Amino acid sequence: MAEALRIGIAGLGTVGASVVRCMTEKEAELTRQCGREMALTAVSARDRNRDRGIALGNAQWFDDPVELARTAEIDVFVELVGGSDGAALAAVKAALHAGRHVVTANKALLSKHGVELAGIAEEKGVLLNYEASVAGGIPVIKTMREALAGNTVSRVFGIMNGTANYILTRMEDEGLSFVDCLAEAQRLGYAEADPTFDIEGHDTAHKLSILTSLAFGCRISADDIYMEGISNITQADIRAAAELGYRIKLLGVAQRTDSGIEQRVHPTMVPTHSVIAQVHGVTNAVAIETDILGELLLSGPGAGGNATASAVIGDIADIAKSRPGFQHGPVFGRPAKKLAPYKKARMRAHAGGYFIRMTVHDRAGVFAAIAKRMANNDISLESIVQHADGGLPSEQKNVILVTHETTEAAVRKAVDGVMQDGHLVDKPQVIRIERAT
Amino acid sequence: MAEALRIGIAGLGTVGASVVRCMTEKEAELTRQCGREMALTAVSARDRNRDRGIALGNAQWFDDPVELARTAEIDVFVELVGGSDGAALAAVKAALHAGRHVVTANKALLSKHGVELAGIAEEKGVLLNYEASVAGGIPVIKTMREALAGNTVSRVFGIMNGTANYILTRMEDEGLSFVDCLAEAQRLGYAEADPTFDIEGHDTAHKLSILTSLAFGCRISADDIYMEGISNITQADIRAAAELGYRIKLLGVAQRTDSGIEQRVHPTMVPTHSVIAQVHGVTNAVAIETDILGELLLSGPGAGGNATASAVIGDIADIAKSRPGFQHGPVFGRPAKKLAPYKKARMRAHAGGYFIRMTVHDRAGVFAAIAKRMANNDISLESIVQHADGGLPSEQKNVILVTHETTEAAVRKAVDGVMQDGHLVDKPQVIRIERAT
Repeated sequence: MAEALRIGIAGLGTVGASVVRCMTEKEAELTRQCGREMALTAVSARDRNRDRGIALGNAQWFDDPVELARTAEIDVFVELVGGSDGAALAAVKAALHAGRHVVTANKALLSKHGVELAGIAEEKGVLLNYEASVAGGIPVIKTMREALAGNTVSRVFGIMNGTANYILTRMEDEGLSFVDCLAEAQRLGYAEADPTFDIEGHDTAHKLSILTSLAFGCRISADDIYMEGISNITQADIRAAAELGYRIKLLGVAQRTDSGIEQRVHPTMVPTHSVIAQVHGVTNAVAIETDILGELLLSGPGAGGNATASAVIGDIADIAKSRPGFQHGPVFGRPAKKLAPYKKARMRAHAGGYFIRMTVHDRAGVFAAIAKRMANNDISLESIVQHADGGLPSEQKNVILVTHETTEAAVRKAVDGVMQDGHLVDKPQVIRIERAT
Repeated sequence: MAEALRIGIAGLGTVGASVVRCMTEKEAELTRQCGREMALTAVSARDRNRDRGIALGNAQWFDDPVELARTAEIDVFVELVGGSDGAALAAVKAALHAGRHVVTANKALLSKHGVELAGIAEEKGVLLNYEASVAGGIPVIKTMREALAGNTVSRVFGIMNGTANYILTRMEDEGLSFVDCLAEAQRLGYAEADPTFDIEGHDTAHKLSILTSLAFGCRISADDIYMEGISNITQADIRAAAELGYRIKLLGVAQRTDSGIEQRVHPTMVPTHSVIAQVHGVTNAVAIETDILGELLLSGPGAGGNATASAVIGDIADIAKSRPGFQHGPVFGRPAKKLAPYKKARMRAHAGGYFIRMTVHDRAGVFAAIAKRMANNDISLESIVQHADGGLPSEQKNVILVTHETTEAAVRKAVDGVMQDGHLVDKPQVIRIERAT
């Protein structure tokens, strides 16, 4: 049998502790699968004395993760420190420069420095694996990087934030407000005290930026992502969506268009009977559309210590199965030096269907005025629903439009026009519709 | 750049032609991804003169696939001949013995000879890749073999036959009979002239046997699979299922139980709101339940030239990225020599919920007699529905029971008892219920 693979883990929080626990419990099976032992030889974390309920054996302790990354006693450096810069970045760079393979679960780090780190890894001939950084335990990186070789991706989209999906699921199931569902999610530990990062789409955007690079062979560009969160989604939207055969999900979508690559994170209407519409609660799902294969969908646990640990261990096992001198494929599907510059598509050029919900004063001519604004902007309508909503005063009505494919620019212009006409009680709600099977 | 990977393809039917076409069209991208060229250097097929609309370039022609498998001019032998024995088996063995990597899409071959072939591949230090053999383009082999390292699988199940799923979907959507939907599927080319292999579960069983080995580290045992097809599913079943919140799918299920491993293929009730229930038409899906990760579901195109070619090309690319001296993980997750004997669980010990539909003579005491038979076998009922079915004479009624978890043995005994009581118009329909999220 080959020599043991020596592993150093920096960061022993929930994920780090799960990785150590699972590797200990599955030692024999992992050895059988990989043809060599996985030995935890070094660890680093903030507090040396904390009881984490895990067996660290004879692993050497490092107070500084950068020192751990540099030690000659490890073959693989597992970065579970977190954060886009600071210790995580310094340690990963140190490990790569020292010729160590790296496994990381750090989406923030990769979305900011991924291309640079990939360049170092490829130059040094070591692996940089990051399955856990996107959609937790779902093997979307492996699928895109390996299984879909030769496929040209046209679109990748998914539910990549469990907190937001949990809140939307509860709003739909229980008829509760966004605020109540958020409070519940916080009570259950599914949402942070400051939930901005999850519910406003930042977390999804980080993950999407990584998938975009893999999908389109371009440099990562997380700053160019159009972003809308779910905090202004109301029960009126959820009910209207259901009535029209849709469900609302916070999606990250990356799509190749004639004018460039769209990257967007926003609440999205997906058909009720699509597979992705059945992805409930904290579960994640990613769909990939390609020319050769067609549409592939992967769903599963997107977060949590064990699900993330599963992906980290899969990444380590891939390294254990490799041998010295082995060259894997490039980190982001094509060599870092050959990743194309990111060419951003203008959001105003986005083409698709739209759901527009307006609360109007119930008086003669309102409907005609709205219809005229749509027609003037070449927007044709798939359905129009008008009804009294339980929550509205009797002199107000909800008008809901679903458009055929049109452009973002046309919708914005039409909606501005309707607002100028003075028939609206408040700002209209505009939600993009996404094709899904 | 490394030397080109020399590829020999035996079999130029729909899949073989797709592989050649896609490799030609994506040559530059594949080279970028793999760091070396993929060169088609040899082919073999039945008819040398047939126009397949593909460019074979300078590839050497072999009339005999075994000769092709043995030539020193290839590094990888791609077997797309088909069949569990004969030329396919001889050629794959010849290639492995000659030290060539092998890629195959042949489920019949693997379900019969997989363990033996894995043993040869491992002894020779070459790769045997077979992603396309199960669920077409869905990367379920890669996921189970690589991504889920360290996970202990408790259950794997899926829709693995597009023909059967197409027929069930049409029966549900259009209210047509099985016979009419089968005829339509044949007209559209989704079903063979002799559809037995697809609709009676044999095809699903072949695929399931491969997943079972990967899931549980045991030898492949396709002959031990319990099998029921879909040809006796009626509109009455489909309607009753819908009424009770279920959909009927032909599933292959492999599950670890206290008494051994269950492998079964049969029509199954899955909850209408589960993700797998939304997998319509010819689409396939596989769900994997593990201890560390939880439940993962993959869905996508399960057949067709391009989807299968996508998996074949992914397998070739994995070989292209490897280098001489590189040892991959074992073919079936653990070394062939260490695969455990298959320990079959008795079908009568199967535990689960059951749907039982009986057409009864509408007279006093029938209900009481049925209820007594159930109670005598310790079967408790989750729901009971009795109604007049449009298709039945007025003196007959449909009685539908959904049981709580019970055993196959108890259900068979209870149903035998009900039949002896003489109240039934014909044989009861018994369909197992499968948990799915």
